[in-house]
Amino acid sequence: MSLPQLRNYANGQWIAGQGEGETLHNAITGEAIYTASSKGLDFAGMMQYARTKAGPVLRRMTFQERGRMLKALALYLMERKEKYYTISRYTGATRADSWVDIEGGIGNLFANASLRRQFPNEPFYVDGDPAILSKNGTFIGHHIMVPRRGVAIHINAFNFPVWGMLEKIAVNLLAGVPAIVKPATITSFLTEAVVEDIIASGILPEGALQLICGSARGILDFVENGDVVTFTGSASTGKMLKAHPRLIDEAVPFNMEADSLNCSVLGADVKPGMPEFDLFIKEVAREITTKAGQKCTAVRRIIVPAGSVEDVQIALGKRLAGTLIGDPSVEGVRMGALAGMSQKQEVLEKIAELSRSQEIVIGDLDNYELHGADKEKGAFLPPIVFLNNNPFTNTACHDIEAFGPVSTIMPYDTMDEAIELSKLGKGSLVSSIITADDKIAKAYVLEAASMHGRILVLNSDCAKESTGHGSPMPLLVHGGPGRAGGGEEMGGKRGVLHYMQRTAIQGSPTTISHITNVYQQNGRQNETEVHPFRKHFEDLEVGDTLITAKHTVTETDITNFANVSGDNFYAHMDATSLEGTIFEQRVAHGYFVLSKAAGLFVDAKKGPVLLNYGIDEARFTKPVYPGATIGVKLTVKQKVDQEKRSEDDIAKGIVKWLVDVYDETGETVAIATILTMVKKRNQD
Amino acid sequence: MSLPQLRNYANGQWIAGQGEGETLHNAITGEAIYTASSKGLDFAGMMQYARTKAGPVLRRMTFQERGRMLKALALYLMERKEKYYTISRYTGATRADSWVDIEGGIGNLFANASLRRQFPNEPFYVDGDPAILSKNGTFIGHHIMVPRRGVAIHINAFNFPVWGMLEKIAVNLLAGVPAIVKPATITSFLTEAVVEDIIASGILPEGALQLICGSARGILDFVENGDVVTFTGSASTGKMLKAHPRLIDEAVPFNMEADSLNCSVLGADVKPGMPEFDLFIKEVAREITTKAGQKCTAVRRIIVPAGSVEDVQIALGKRLAGTLIGDPSVEGVRMGALAGMSQKQEVLEKIAELSRSQEIVIGDLDNYELHGADKEKGAFLPPIVFLNNNPFTNTACHDIEAFGPVSTIMPYDTMDEAIELSKLGKGSLVSSIITADDKIAKAYVLEAASMHGRILVLNSDCAKESTGHGSPMPLLVHGGPGRAGGGEEMGGKRGVLHYMQRTAIQGSPTTISHITNVYQQNGRQNETEVHPFRKHFEDLEVGDTLITAKHTVTETDITNFANVSGDNFYAHMDATSLEGTIFEQRVAHGYFVLSKAAGLFVDAKKGPVLLNYGIDEARFTKPVYPGATIGVKLTVKQKVDQEKRSEDDIAKGIVKWLVDVYDETGETVAIATILTMVKKRNQD
Repeated sequence: MSLPQLRNYANGQWIAGQGEGETLHNAITGEAIYTASSKGLDFAGMMQYARTKAGPVLRRMTFQERGRMLKALALYLMERKEKYYTISRYTGATRADSWVDIEGGIGNLFANASLRRQFPNEPFYVDGDPAILSKNGTFIGHHIMVPRRGVAIHINAFNFPVWGMLEKIAVNLLAGVPAIVKPATITSFLTEAVVEDIIASGILPEGALQLICGSARGILDFVENGDVVTFTGSASTGKMLKAHPRLIDEAVPFNMEADSLNCSVLGADVKPGMPEFDLFIKEVAREITTKAGQKCTAVRRIIVPAGSVEDVQIALGKRLAGTLIGDPSVEGVRMGALAGMSQKQEVLEKIAELSRSQEIVIGDLDNYELHGADKEKGAFLPPIVFLNNNPFTNTACHDIEAFGPVSTIMPYDTMDEAIELSKLGKGSLVSSIITADDKIAKAYVLEAASMHGRILVLNSDCAKESTGHGSPMPLLVHGGPGRAGGGEEMGGKRGVLHYMQRTAIQGSPTTISHITNVYQQNGRQNETEVHPFRKHFEDLEVGDTLITAKHTVTETDITNFANVSGDNFYAHMDATSLEGTIFEQRVAHGYFVLSKAAGLFVDAKKGPVLLNYGIDEARFTKPVYPGATIGVKLTVKQKVDQEKRSEDDIAKGIVKWLVDVYDETGETVAIATILTMVKKRNQD
Repeated sequence: MSLPQLRNYANGQWIAGQGEGETLHNAITGEAIYTASSKGLDFAGMMQYARTKAGPVLRRMTFQERGRMLKALALYLMERKEKYYTISRYTGATRADSWVDIEGGIGNLFANASLRRQFPNEPFYVDGDPAILSKNGTFIGHHIMVPRRGVAIHINAFNFPVWGMLEKIAVNLLAGVPAIVKPATITSFLTEAVVEDIIASGILPEGALQLICGSARGILDFVENGDVVTFTGSASTGKMLKAHPRLIDEAVPFNMEADSLNCSVLGADVKPGMPEFDLFIKEVAREITTKAGQKCTAVRRIIVPAGSVEDVQIALGKRLAGTLIGDPSVEGVRMGALAGMSQKQEVLEKIAELSRSQEIVIGDLDNYELHGADKEKGAFLPPIVFLNNNPFTNTACHDIEAFGPVSTIMPYDTMDEAIELSKLGKGSLVSSIITADDKIAKAYVLEAASMHGRILVLNSDCAKESTGHGSPMPLLVHGGPGRAGGGEEMGGKRGVLHYMQRTAIQGSPTTISHITNVYQQNGRQNETEVHPFRKHFEDLEVGDTLITAKHTVTETDITNFANVSGDNFYAHMDATSLEGTIFEQRVAHGYFVLSKAAGLFVDAKKGPVLLNYGIDEARFTKPVYPGATIGVKLTVKQKVDQEKRSEDDIAKGIVKWLVDVYDETGETVAIATILTMVKKRNQD
């Protein structure tokens, strides 16, 4: 009887590959379940399809539209999650393991959907602050970022068939770039099931996502300079791909996340009996057993004060002994199988290599209990912990990554040694330190950071809400230097920007305002006849300006303001105190100047402006003394469309205004950006 | 008679290389002037010297210290600039050309020195905003960046022997990383002269800068994962280096700036007689002749509305005909020689290749006037401009970079065509568009940006202060996608961060506050006995908190505040207007809440606090109605040391305070960061 073949999604069609393909197995039972082949797929055609069919559609969408698309997709997949949990069992995963993969992946879609609020309501992004390039302000610079005009090729690892795909496509889709996903074949049946639903949902524009279940060998021969390639997997494959002549020729960004000998350090302050000691044991044990240790971020090296080695070994041994291994559908099982027999074989080889210079102190490969499964058929391994008493001379533990439930305890004497040991891994994705002493935490972080992509400091204050050593978070960067591949993904906005081209732009402030849709200082101001507070959101334009009446500041103002605020600071109230200050007379309160500016620019009658909800970057640039006469230029700086939270919600947007308060000499005395909410039309 | 040999600066010593070495010539006269050899240098030793001798010293310095070091160096070199101008003549450069190289390079040091103000007074940098990772706020994330623990290897091009070095080392030094510079041998005598002064100045820590004047072949065999390599030069060499197995193995960042067929586009709106037409001709002519066209950013493609081709050709021809070529020391000469005979030969070959599909319309290789120099001996070429009437079919002009005074005019019919032509260069460092119409500018920029690292929009508003098509600016990124190498350098802070490792950190807000030296919300607050306004800068600590008395808000407050500010906005003053708003009653002014907060937290008596100079990110998070009782928690958020501008200046620092205004329910009603200047001790 022939097995069902997984299908590829290419050029708008679900197609089976030619030939028999590779056979995929149930990791728990060893049973053959699928075949996968990509033979006959037209890779060049798929890439061109993505670039020409989906690229233009995604690029025209604004960040808000792309974000809402991700949110819709996340909701859609969440409704179908139980289906994925069922299929995920074949990978050897427990429900908890699958949660990280499935709901973690969908959570990543949600997180990226929310990121839209950090982007403008435009297809492009304006990066950083303007650069002042001229004395008189007629020539300025800025940076915009536009979607790269290519396709993202994601070559993913076997351990997270859902999260691995979703964390990557969430980001390229938010940036406005389509993707082709190549999951590792061995667990691609789960990725395929999710992609099937995604395509069926019709939520993504056609061509925005394609799938290759079999081999993708040769696809990089067709990359072009607008494309981006990401790789998660073994360093050997990653390095080969990174040096691919076509990638180099076309200067295609290549983001790699490869091997990593992550470590967890126990602070010298932590003794048995302290809550941090138990936290350490729990964290390390969890990292060894989750996904049967098949996590790029798992703790491979356990760095412990020399005096605590024995205590750690005993406590960890006890905890691991209580972890039931077997078929995850059996009640109480906490650790499942590796993804397949070849993975198991590879881990066994690495264990043998490690055994040459260090000794197993926890776990027995020949003697462990299995629940509801057969050792011969399933890809099971027990947790194995080594002890290495000479980690500076026997360095295999810093070089050999056994991608399973395997870790090594090693002692340190001083903080410098602990840091040095952490760095012997030659670059890792994550390191953690468990300490109750923030001084120890700081010393470790600042010295060790250059070699780790993420550092978790765990103590009893944060343990309850900690997301743990092993979990990359959408808002934090994931990746690490050196051995870990030198890549960086996620990290909130940062990850999205990897899929965009940053371009410096230069010109007059008026031109740059027009291009960015953000008013730039010294740009043309359009004085409008109607007070801008009387205009609805849609009717306001960037650059619209109100020039107000003026007000001559008096001592009475200062006194009255001090009375109403209670702010009797000497520089405002005590005329005898000014010696040695920068002030020549009693100076008006900065808050008075801002408040009076509002008094000058506000249109009091009820209208489209709903409220003032904040101030960004206010600066008091020149003292205002009694006798000074101030006026305000109020200019629409930026408009940010807002989504209705519910049907009953008022349709509105955020308007940022540049408030330029100037005195009788024309010089600016205060400048600020204020934030208001303004109603849209036809709602009264 | 043997020629003087240039020396290398390696391992703390000036050493001549072994053997005869390469011969260097005066580009104007052809005379042999120096030899250069790096034979016998211990590259591995030099790198280790940089890493172990200078690395730790630079890393311990704060950004402020590193920035002041750069400023001192810039001042020191500026005093000696005439020496460099004299030597620079041998490269074939005019005084104007040398200005870009020498004073442009020193200017880059100054610009990077000033960048220190955008960094904390710490050896590390805190990047972006904290990430909220938990519901109750006991666990947060953030990013810090620490100097990479390696050495920057800069492999530079021949055209800017000073700027090329200084723009790169300015950045790595500010980041806290030492450098080894390998200038192109042919013009390395000028780099050597500058490095000699730099070393003699003693301004940089020993080992922070080393120099290789001859070949650096083999140096990449010794890179390690903390290092960074940059390359400016030909694409063929760059690609070879980028694929170097050791770079790939160690995941060493490689920044490449290579070939670039930059274009300048004349907007369809611009007709002869408009100022923009003349600007275009002037800009293009300047880009062809400056440095005899040996600039990575020079205009190689002149994209012109079909109807204006003839006008452009005539005007450009006239202008170029007026450019005197020859020995730059001859009065009136505006264009010098190429850097050497081999460069000239290479350009001639490229001209021959280009001539196969397009025709020379300006300039004659066999017939041009030379002033004070000999065509046979000096590396001279006249400006050569081609016309290509079929730029979509004869595409050599988009592929062949003749690195000399050579450019091609080509026509376009529609904006889409102009954009398409600009992109046929397959990725460039810079493009410009000359137009008086901002709509045209916007259309071009947004569509073309994905293929250009920088876009200049030139019009008559900004022309007078424009820095021009060809000039990379320290505050803007320099680099381009695709053919240009896919690199990115400079760009203000961005460039500095290339030399640092970004590490995500996670922990309790108290721990993260302690590590970053920035108070994080929900971190521990230390209520101090002494009012913090009575403490000098040195005595304040991040986390110090004042909990104020409280104030019950009344209608009288609102009325009084409206009277003193003049702000009678309906939501505050008109009790009948609130239907359809989010307000249940007349609401207190946001500015009143902030001002009253100041009234509560200010200590009025003269003391160390000098002034309040601004507000960052104030948010009014909950309406305050009459009857609400507000109090303030005022916490030291961050301290920024300030330099004295003069001896008489008061020694002071900036203190940023977190102002948390809460009501009787404990909920925050307003939150803001305010900025004050606070005196240091012992100055009264």
